[in-house]
Amino acid sequence: MASRPYLPVAINMRHRSAVIIGAGEPAYFKTLLLADFGISITVIACDISDIDDRFSEFENHELVQLVRREYGPDLLHGHYMAVIATGDRETDYAIEADARGQGLLVNVVDDPDHCDFFASAYVRHGVVSVAVSSGGASPGFTAALKDDIAARYGPEIEAHLGCYLEWRALVRSQIQQFSDREHFWRELRSAGLYDVLREQGPEIARELVERRLVEWTKTRG
Amino acid sequence: MASRPYLPVAINMRHRSAVIIGAGEPAYFKTLLLADFGISITVIACDISDIDDRFSEFENHELVQLVRREYGPDLLHGHYMAVIATGDRETDYAIEADARGQGLLVNVVDDPDHCDFFASAYVRHGVVSVAVSSGGASPGFTAALKDDIAARYGPEIEAHLGCYLEWRALVRSQIQQFSDREHFWRELRSAGLYDVLREQGPEIARELVERRLVEWTKTRG
Repeated sequence: MASRPYLPVAINMRHRSAVIIGAGEPAYFKTLLLADFGISITVIACDISDIDDRFSEFENHELVQLVRREYGPDLLHGHYMAVIATGDRETDYAIEADARGQGLLVNVVDDPDHCDFFASAYVRHGVVSVAVSSGGASPGFTAALKDDIAARYGPEIEAHLGCYLEWRALVRSQIQQFSDREHFWRELRSAGLYDVLREQGPEIARELVERRLVEWTKTRG
Repeated sequence: MASRPYLPVAINMRHRSAVIIGAGEPAYFKTLLLADFGISITVIACDISDIDDRFSEFENHELVQLVRREYGPDLLHGHYMAVIATGDRETDYAIEADARGQGLLVNVVDDPDHCDFFASAYVRHGVVSVAVSSGGASPGFTAALKDDIAARYGPEIEAHLGCYLEWRALVRSQIQQFSDREHFWRELRSAGLYDVLREQGPEIARELVERRLVEWTKTRG
């Protein structure tokens, strides 16, 4: 059993936005992260917070809005997620209470006991992401492991996803039952389909899918 | 930009529990997942739901409680997360409304538009997890990529984390400022510390850390 019950998931941010209170360096890095996943972000540069120079990068960014205003709880309205990074812990905790009162998911930066979620170190290619977490134990280690994964899994994983989507359409057209399709995919997995794709390329892999499909429909169709 | 704004994070389930409504096969797999991360789970085997035979595995499990009872919204009280899998979509959505009303994070199984979060395919060794997501596009592909990652990253990654924790204590004892330590870790990362650890083992890697630490304190101490 894990001693840190931190569950790796993907948060659904469709039609949802994030608010970041504070505009210093930690806020900058969280903005980079959220924007990389296509999430709309409002950054509140409140009185107490220094503004990181690098926010100028986002000047005309379609996802990022920088608001220079004193903090008030009304600024949280309508957002799904709050990242709190004013640079002053007491202020952070007061804002945290407001955000929890409004039912937002909260991350007080670098303060695990005050976080509903932790950002992971990740590799992303298109919609495929590989995320590394050590439950906050060692950001240095998660970054190192992430680098290692990034060196092994490049943009080809997005192309691989494309193959699977194409094959899925094919399988769906020939096997009607959901549970049969699940079974068929398990067999392909045991047959090493992904190794074939990685090592021999999409055409040979597609032939394997087609051959298995013929066998399947012959014996059970 | 990702067309699916699904953010990979780790959810903090410390002192928090999950409730699963329904006890069929999807509920069984979610129970396995949550228990693997050390999360307390109450499974509600309500009238409408079949009970998967495999729930007998959890009979004396310290984290899993199976409750045979008709569903009522009071069953959601006090939980942080609800997984809804009764086997009947209309019932699922009614329960979803209750759960949202109580501010729980919700996952209606296999129904992305009704999910606040998606479980990832993952490899876990101790507190280190590597999670794969395709934003729900292809579970077949994420499972295949996860298998590939599992073959490359075994239990040694938990031992690697142990090394980093030991080195962190060492670095902390010799470099006082947080920002200096961050800088020092970035240098170690550029110097290929993790490659040295993977390829030459913990002793040679520790020597690298110590040598860099001596150089650092000589030039800046």
